[in-house]
Amino acid sequence: MDELMALPTQPYKGTRDFYPEDFRLRQYIFDNWKKVCESFGYEPYDAPVIEPLELFASKTSEEIVREQTFSFEDRGGRMVTMRPEMTPSVSRMVAARRQELGYPLRLYSIPNCFRYERMQRGRTREFWQLNADLFGVEGIEAEVEILMLTDQLMKVFGATDDMYEIRVNSRKLLNARIASAQPKGEPMEVLRLIDRMDKMSPEDFEKELAELVGSPDQLLAFLRASSLEDIDEPEAEGLKTLLLRAKEAGVSSAIFMPAAARGFDYYTDIVFEVFDRSPENNRAMFGGGRYDGLVGAFGVEPIPTIGIAPGDVTMQNFLETHGLLPELKSETQAFVAPLTGQIGPAEALVAELRANGVNVALGLEDKKAEQYIKVADKKQIPYIIFVGGQEAKTNTFKAKNLRTKEESEPLSPDQLTKFLLS
Amino acid sequence: MDELMALPTQPYKGTRDFYPEDFRLRQYIFDNWKKVCESFGYEPYDAPVIEPLELFASKTSEEIVREQTFSFEDRGGRMVTMRPEMTPSVSRMVAARRQELGYPLRLYSIPNCFRYERMQRGRTREFWQLNADLFGVEGIEAEVEILMLTDQLMKVFGATDDMYEIRVNSRKLLNARIASAQPKGEPMEVLRLIDRMDKMSPEDFEKELAELVGSPDQLLAFLRASSLEDIDEPEAEGLKTLLLRAKEAGVSSAIFMPAAARGFDYYTDIVFEVFDRSPENNRAMFGGGRYDGLVGAFGVEPIPTIGIAPGDVTMQNFLETHGLLPELKSETQAFVAPLTGQIGPAEALVAELRANGVNVALGLEDKKAEQYIKVADKKQIPYIIFVGGQEAKTNTFKAKNLRTKEESEPLSPDQLTKFLLS
Repeated sequence: MDELMALPTQPYKGTRDFYPEDFRLRQYIFDNWKKVCESFGYEPYDAPVIEPLELFASKTSEEIVREQTFSFEDRGGRMVTMRPEMTPSVSRMVAARRQELGYPLRLYSIPNCFRYERMQRGRTREFWQLNADLFGVEGIEAEVEILMLTDQLMKVFGATDDMYEIRVNSRKLLNARIASAQPKGEPMEVLRLIDRMDKMSPEDFEKELAELVGSPDQLLAFLRASSLEDIDEPEAEGLKTLLLRAKEAGVSSAIFMPAAARGFDYYTDIVFEVFDRSPENNRAMFGGGRYDGLVGAFGVEPIPTIGIAPGDVTMQNFLETHGLLPELKSETQAFVAPLTGQIGPAEALVAELRANGVNVALGLEDKKAEQYIKVADKKQIPYIIFVGGQEAKTNTFKAKNLRTKEESEPLSPDQLTKFLLS
Repeated sequence: MDELMALPTQPYKGTRDFYPEDFRLRQYIFDNWKKVCESFGYEPYDAPVIEPLELFASKTSEEIVREQTFSFEDRGGRMVTMRPEMTPSVSRMVAARRQELGYPLRLYSIPNCFRYERMQRGRTREFWQLNADLFGVEGIEAEVEILMLTDQLMKVFGATDDMYEIRVNSRKLLNARIASAQPKGEPMEVLRLIDRMDKMSPEDFEKELAELVGSPDQLLAFLRASSLEDIDEPEAEGLKTLLLRAKEAGVSSAIFMPAAARGFDYYTDIVFEVFDRSPENNRAMFGGGRYDGLVGAFGVEPIPTIGIAPGDVTMQNFLETHGLLPELKSETQAFVAPLTGQIGPAEALVAELRANGVNVALGLEDKKAEQYIKVADKKQIPYIIFVGGQEAKTNTFKAKNLRTKEESEPLSPDQLTKFLLS
């Protein structure tokens, strides 16, 4: 094959290949998300990657749709988009079966989403995101449950309260304050600026805010308020009750944060974001909130809804920063290595171990013992079992631990099964 | 909200929404695929949905790339494709780390793939596919293992040998016979026609074949041969050995089928397909084969490779046709229904059950007992637990089976845990 014509081996820019060790890490995160969601009675669902463009056009943040979607015309002339987020799709699905579904309806999914982003830490063009949504509950019980769920989604990985905080705010309160500050253009522009406040210097923020609103001072004071006691709108009472009830339910990391905004247009009331408190990774990790209007966009009665959406990349960064990633093992429990002429007995052993529920890889080509060990080591398989003439004759086999180099006594296939599965 | 402006609720044409009951069915298939692959020592991986167009341009079937891909220009002017299949991506990944990976290398993935297809049974524009591939083994042991794996991928669902057959052929043999028949154009066109032979009437097939080759008679006789004894090429010996060794390894449904072709260009030798033997669904379900050249397309030494790729839709059709689908239960074990004023005690019970590992959904709004039962029933949750004043006072609760209507004795939270998890 001509080297000059060779295809490149790297993945498309901004996307990732998942080799087995990468896959295990991602799966570890997904398995924990699944465990927590299902313990709260959330049911799994999925939607297509491709959706009609108009599903996102009026729903998702305008910036994302205009600048960051993978959108194109299909072979039948329809404009389609690779989903940049899951919320419009799940709202569509709920609207389609509004009457048949029982409420409270709890749904979760772990979809891959696509955004044409400039590269920066925590951002990729294909990323995975847990979407957990609670439909049909107007009362504060919904907010309390979502905060409990959020807290468990951190605790399940071994995170402790000092590592993160859950910043809670009210869009209604924030919108009222923005309105009072006399925005010169769209109020949403001011909200998006506030969403970026953490990433800017105080001076830059003040400067940009002064460009967007007529009287920035009171708004600035509000955004820097540290306590709900300083706020006199009725929304402050609701926030107080929510934080109190969350604390009673064991969520001790939830705090009021007047500058927590979240970028999506569709949030209608309470919003929150989980913030990493470590100095090296001090940033908003993910968020959520109430978006009561979205199901109604499909021509049915609206349904009160609240949801959250942590992403795989930010979660992995958090776990790495705090040293919370466990060592992940291969799914394969043993490598069976046939020595010269012993492929038949090795196949028989492997068949028996597999029938007993052991995951076994078989060495298929005649190799030397050291070569087999090297292969099993590369795959992080914990045990190697050699099958030579003596083993074949006695039908007993030693399992060698590749890390400690210790070797078991000769074991029958049944004893070997117990040994490997223990 | 204006009804005329409402967004449509159906998914993009040819794709599917997966509500919880659909998701569970798909997950049942995936879980079984995963179990079988891992029992053979296959390791999980994943690749991006988006790949550069050129990855597929020269590899995948030309028809698929030209007529069936979702391809488009990204915002940076690059031509990209949503993967129509996984084989080029996994070949790219293996080529990128050719030296670091240990052989035999066993990899599996369950990606979603995208093809712009005309609608017909078993075809969708977004489908999932198990890809299991074995890299680095030249010998027939690789073919035997892949046939064993294929057979287990059917047996794990309860399929018996009378329900399916595994049709085995040699591309080398078939290509030689096509060459002898004097093709008028590209030999690959003849191969693709043969791949469609099962779906055509014998007359139509003969007519189209006569248009593509100069002397169709011997080729026709070969395609209708029922036994390897009728074939005198050396490849027949290899096929005989393979079928014999597969039988010894317990694969009794493998047979020689001279017309088994498979549509992809990249197969180089042995190919096979699993065929549903039921009269209602008599069709090729999925296939695989040896494709030794693909890793080499990335400018590295080629690696002998063999793989298979069953799809979710054809597998589901097969399981439905043969009555092999089990009843799938909700992940949620109990619905806790607080009666008026008892949300506090209900929350406490739920917290305790969850801490004990029980998946519990909580009723969050004040409803009547019958309404709660209706909701739990819609979600196929097996048990409902009412929390009224008496239950709160005694801290004991009855679990009611929603199907049999039987009710347990009053149980403490710990007893309830044992009851629900048993």
